[in-house]
Amino acid sequence: MIEQKRADPKRITPQSEDFDRWYVDTVLRAELADYTPVRGCMVIRPYGFALWENIQRALDDMFKRTGHENMYFPLLIPESYLAKEAQHVEGFAPEVAWVTRGGGKELEEPLAIRPTSETIICSLYTDWIHSWRDLPVKINQWVNVCRWEKRTRLFMRTTEFLWQEGHTFHETYDEAADEVETMLGTYRELHEDWLAMPVIPGRKTDSEKFAGADYTVSIEAMMKDGWALQAGTSHHLGQNFTRAYGIQFTDRGNELQHPYQTSWGLSTRVIGGLIMSHGDDAGLIMPPKVAPVQVVVVPIVRSNDAEGSALVEEAVARIEREVAGSVRLRVDRREGIRPGEKYAHWELRGVPLRIVVGAKDLAEERVTVVRRMDGLDQMLPLDGLAARLPQLLAETQAAMFARARNELEERSVHVTSLAELVAAFAERPVFASGPFCNRPECEVRIKEAVHALTVRNLRADRTADGAPCIACGDPADHVALTARAY
Amino acid sequence: MIEQKRADPKRITPQSEDFDRWYVDTVLRAELADYTPVRGCMVIRPYGFALWENIQRALDDMFKRTGHENMYFPLLIPESYLAKEAQHVEGFAPEVAWVTRGGGKELEEPLAIRPTSETIICSLYTDWIHSWRDLPVKINQWVNVCRWEKRTRLFMRTTEFLWQEGHTFHETYDEAADEVETMLGTYRELHEDWLAMPVIPGRKTDSEKFAGADYTVSIEAMMKDGWALQAGTSHHLGQNFTRAYGIQFTDRGNELQHPYQTSWGLSTRVIGGLIMSHGDDAGLIMPPKVAPVQVVVVPIVRSNDAEGSALVEEAVARIEREVAGSVRLRVDRREGIRPGEKYAHWELRGVPLRIVVGAKDLAEERVTVVRRMDGLDQMLPLDGLAARLPQLLAETQAAMFARARNELEERSVHVTSLAELVAAFAERPVFASGPFCNRPECEVRIKEAVHALTVRNLRADRTADGAPCIACGDPADHVALTARAY
Repeated sequence: MIEQKRADPKRITPQSEDFDRWYVDTVLRAELADYTPVRGCMVIRPYGFALWENIQRALDDMFKRTGHENMYFPLLIPESYLAKEAQHVEGFAPEVAWVTRGGGKELEEPLAIRPTSETIICSLYTDWIHSWRDLPVKINQWVNVCRWEKRTRLFMRTTEFLWQEGHTFHETYDEAADEVETMLGTYRELHEDWLAMPVIPGRKTDSEKFAGADYTVSIEAMMKDGWALQAGTSHHLGQNFTRAYGIQFTDRGNELQHPYQTSWGLSTRVIGGLIMSHGDDAGLIMPPKVAPVQVVVVPIVRSNDAEGSALVEEAVARIEREVAGSVRLRVDRREGIRPGEKYAHWELRGVPLRIVVGAKDLAEERVTVVRRMDGLDQMLPLDGLAARLPQLLAETQAAMFARARNELEERSVHVTSLAELVAAFAERPVFASGPFCNRPECEVRIKEAVHALTVRNLRADRTADGAPCIACGDPADHVALTARAY
Repeated sequence: MIEQKRADPKRITPQSEDFDRWYVDTVLRAELADYTPVRGCMVIRPYGFALWENIQRALDDMFKRTGHENMYFPLLIPESYLAKEAQHVEGFAPEVAWVTRGGGKELEEPLAIRPTSETIICSLYTDWIHSWRDLPVKINQWVNVCRWEKRTRLFMRTTEFLWQEGHTFHETYDEAADEVETMLGTYRELHEDWLAMPVIPGRKTDSEKFAGADYTVSIEAMMKDGWALQAGTSHHLGQNFTRAYGIQFTDRGNELQHPYQTSWGLSTRVIGGLIMSHGDDAGLIMPPKVAPVQVVVVPIVRSNDAEGSALVEEAVARIEREVAGSVRLRVDRREGIRPGEKYAHWELRGVPLRIVVGAKDLAEERVTVVRRMDGLDQMLPLDGLAARLPQLLAETQAAMFARARNELEERSVHVTSLAELVAAFAERPVFASGPFCNRPECEVRIKEAVHALTVRNLRADRTADGAPCIACGDPADHVALTARAY
């Protein structure tokens, strides 16, 4: 069972008091997700699932735009198929859930619930790839997977989770390498343009790469507590799996070859990252492009002012009519609930803009528009309001990204030695970058220098140009991003 | 393992020779799906999955329009939760796949892979439903489920399949009954308006209702071999599960009550029904509204006619440009493949319209448009062609529905006795309807009268008005639809 921290029904724990509790309080109270009686598994509630659907739609469109097609492969994988790629099975076997009985009988061979699908996909593509004309293969699936986790956390780490896994096969190593970069690029686009989360791309060290990969690249985002979140990974699998599974094609020179392969995935974990990138003590702050509700309208209706209330309702109806699907708008007409409570309700849920429609403002043909991210409020004329909302939302989206980027920059440091690295973490968790030779023993020394530190990736946007490795002092090619990580 | 009938690489078995083989040949050769090494599980290939996505999108929009929200519940259900509703567990237990090991250990309690999710959903809603203000709850999920099947068949019956399952909770029995009808209505709308499949709605007999339901309604469609396919079901669960799981709410009169519940589902089986409703000896025939490719353009390019070929390419580029996303159009520019092969390729895949662009026709500023459903071909001016395509597709959609409805009517008979029922099936399978008292013993007599006959449902669109039951002769209220069924 997930370690169940119940939400305090009265308040959200402030971030400064306990960031972990703030996170759990927010997820539960905003009704994004909840615990279940099933060990390590959560339920995604309508508001959380609507957010996931918006993220899915954006990413799926990018996949299709870049020439990928969706498929569906079986949930269950026979033990013998899982076992063919040695490093892969070694990496995943401890996390697998096994089906051993079905239809009232013990099975002859146990079936794994997929922890990922390289093995079953390779098994099938042996029949479908014969010639270079069959390449590239570029496919994706949106599915559930299971990985038995000891410590779980809503959205961040659950035994079952939802994700997409892309799988491609190519004629050459370089074409596969291009695909690896392209798909990391779509993840970056999703995070920066849709989720307002700046990310740092780079290559994982060998100790952190995907089990069975030649190499893995990732994007890393900073949460509000200064910790890192791996926000999407893309793997170059070389010919490791295609050799093991015997996939061969006749190349343009009429020679038999094993194709080169990639895989890349992004899961519901992205929702955890979104929450921890933007939220504050009042709850969620949703980036407008993926917000299930972009604008909430709160009518201020007074039982002792029938005439004013009628004007308010008329103005609200006009806004609804004029918006007509151009933004995702909800009117909160619930009775018996004070305006202040309604404000708090939608602030908790992170709705980007709130429009307050009251008789007093309407006398001047105006309404109040309040921005969730910073409480900025302005009086705007009712005339033309609906037409201005998309622009206000776009400004909010840009402002959220700019703020997150500033926070990332303010909390990033460059270090040239282990001593500087230790000093950088003395006050609070940061993103520390420094020259790194990429030797495993140096990675160990870095990780041991600061409690719970990890090398996140070798930054794609920086080079060390031979500056001395912070651990051993030898000339280094890479700049390692180090941080504490979820 | 699915009984693997491989497709003949050279031809599709004609329907008249062996309808079952025709079906399998078509699914495999059109690359909708294929077998896998996993017992009873199939892989849905890109063309089949694109079709499923179109169906999903249409149905999901209908669900949202009728006030439903999507969620996600866990895949795994503890044995003790599954067991709480007695009839339900009795119905499903023989089909369940059990996870007994996870994370390297034997589990203390086995976990079922969901065969359907009433049990886990009820477990969770005990925490979320307290007052009549919390009702109705109207939710849905798009997920995979497993039911261990002895005999499997691509799309029609597989151990794992994809579906949507809707679940709702209501204050009153009647409100739940209205929901049951509304959702059967959405399934009917999907079939008739999107899939061009006429259906017959009605209530299942008690022997065929969902395990744990008060009653089940279904829509039944006729396949081209005269067999019936249950094409969507909607269940009134009464208080059966809410009592068993202890869900209670305070009603408007301040009394504690168990809510009334419904569930309804539609699976990837719908694709099997679509294929068998419309296909012919050349392969699939796709209804335009859900066709992954609605229009295919085949340029006729000759290596010995550079000038003509340039004109052809220019005309094709113009069609592509002018269509600009208004229809799903594909240009088949593959080299080294004769036009006739291309025609057969896209006929097999059921693309509703083919546009042939050749230099000879272009000399008269025209192209040839051929309709897949009946081979109807017409010469149309290139000018304004793109703008006419949506209309041509709409006409095709309507013509496919009209043809299917005619076939259903021609192959339907009314019977007034068991002797007439037997006679009706003497030549070929039909849909036979007749007065029925709805007694279990009469249902048995009907089913025994003709080999493999079943009572599909008690038709919602007919009443018997006291005419004598075809089995016992007593005055009957219902008209039973009887047929052989998949």
